[in-house]
Amino acid sequence: MTSEHIKSEFRNLQLHICEALEKIDGLALFQEDSWTREEGGGGFTRTILNGNILEKGGVAFSAVEGPVSEAMKKQLGMEGNAFFASGVSIVLHPFHPHHPIIHMNVRYFELDNGTYWFGGGIDLTPHYINEQAARLFHQGLKKLCNQYHIDFYSKFKPWADTYFHLPHRGESRGIGGIFFDHLDENCGLEKSKIFEFCLELGRLFPILYRQQIDFNTVITATEAELAWQASRRSRYVEFNLLHDRGTKFGIYSGGRTESILMSMPPMAKWEYNVDPTPNSEEAKTTELLKKVIDWV
Amino acid sequence: MTSEHIKSEFRNLQLHICEALEKIDGLALFQEDSWTREEGGGGFTRTILNGNILEKGGVAFSAVEGPVSEAMKKQLGMEGNAFFASGVSIVLHPFHPHHPIIHMNVRYFELDNGTYWFGGGIDLTPHYINEQAARLFHQGLKKLCNQYHIDFYSKFKPWADTYFHLPHRGESRGIGGIFFDHLDENCGLEKSKIFEFCLELGRLFPILYRQQIDFNTVITATEAELAWQASRRSRYVEFNLLHDRGTKFGIYSGGRTESILMSMPPMAKWEYNVDPTPNSEEAKTTELLKKVIDWV
Repeated sequence: MTSEHIKSEFRNLQLHICEALEKIDGLALFQEDSWTREEGGGGFTRTILNGNILEKGGVAFSAVEGPVSEAMKKQLGMEGNAFFASGVSIVLHPFHPHHPIIHMNVRYFELDNGTYWFGGGIDLTPHYINEQAARLFHQGLKKLCNQYHIDFYSKFKPWADTYFHLPHRGESRGIGGIFFDHLDENCGLEKSKIFEFCLELGRLFPILYRQQIDFNTVITATEAELAWQASRRSRYVEFNLLHDRGTKFGIYSGGRTESILMSMPPMAKWEYNVDPTPNSEEAKTTELLKKVIDWV
Repeated sequence: MTSEHIKSEFRNLQLHICEALEKIDGLALFQEDSWTREEGGGGFTRTILNGNILEKGGVAFSAVEGPVSEAMKKQLGMEGNAFFASGVSIVLHPFHPHHPIIHMNVRYFELDNGTYWFGGGIDLTPHYINEQAARLFHQGLKKLCNQYHIDFYSKFKPWADTYFHLPHRGESRGIGGIFFDHLDENCGLEKSKIFEFCLELGRLFPILYRQQIDFNTVITATEAELAWQASRRSRYVEFNLLHDRGTKFGIYSGGRTESILMSMPPMAKWEYNVDPTPNSEEAKTTELLKKVIDWV
């Protein structure tokens, strides 16, 4: 399995996901920007704006290569002269407060000394947690994981709980999902099988998102719901700029800023020291975010 | 000069600044929250909301003390068993796009081994740069600096240019100001004089801000101006969460989140890959932010 093959499959995955999301949205179409990296490689950033369902979304593909910089050596903690990295990364911000924000990312990294690994994750950030919809999401992920390795879900679900966490808020970003990194043949699957798992996860993504969208027949949002959404979106900003490894690595290593920050919500609000009204739907969601929950 | 004295003068400074800002605003009044820190000390966070001029602002005072943690040792790169730290920190977000965002911070830190230092800074972030107003701001700062040390402005102005910079955007946060850190008697002034400089900078703050407010007789903002302001505010968020040392230290060391993030704008917008119209006022400001300018 060559890096060319991985690259071309990831690019196909990006196009497949965009097509599926356009069907879900029913109105807006993705626009594509391409960029190149001076040291080698580049990417295609696809964004969707002001659709029927989606207010702002991005599906990015990149494949970069080149010499391993000192900064990368430090971050990776291992040696190598040249690297290749490719992946697909998605964040969708829907208009309606009763539709969730969703994120997914699958990626491959290799060094010229033969080392390689896969990483990825998917997590759902409902503005209002619907417990039945949360179960559905996790059941879908568990089913896929089980098709590849009986330990994947039980390892990757808590990994997501740990990763998608805002310590300074004492809460999770959402209802979690799965997260994995540095996956190689030591996980019990051969390389091609791990890659297949990543691709299948990518193909599952629009199916899972459609389930979530279909789950909530939405009526016009109230002012209070929109205000709550704006406040939850500010937490999404905080996570991405303070904690998200991909964002920080991209920013500090001089990646293309607009492609990295396509994950930002279209709008966010910060109010000082405001807690939701006790016993409200907003308070219920906040309470659930403070716990680690076995959704399946 | 005891730490009790420094603490009480900083608290007085906070109250003085709030009073002066209430006069500038002419409508809203500050509300005060107090908090305590388990290991010792605490603070008073004062916030102002929905005034005549100010949409959201915070003036925070804190005085904390206790054992030096391992994380602090690492960050400080020096030894000590106990520390005391106190300071005043301000961020103001005005309603009108032709009024600038402003930030100031003065702080004192000491270890039980006798080491101490002062730090601080002030910087102005106009949504639209008015070059005459920018000169006025820097002239005021230079005048104060010169009263204390002939080298202060020529050292502290470039320090601010370096500090208040967003490398991933290739632009400054605003028109800069002054920034200084680790200031002790090696700077040529004795401790009480450095403290006096910090207090005088604090007292100058509302005078400089009133100048800026008076400079622009504002009429109702256009939709385009408000959209530009929302976009500039997103850069303020990016700076604070990605780069600002105080914010990052506060968040990672478990400070009071709402007091740290009172610096966030009330609202911010992220649009994908949008550049201002050539030759517009917005383009002019963007161009100025890409340069290091000697405003005096």
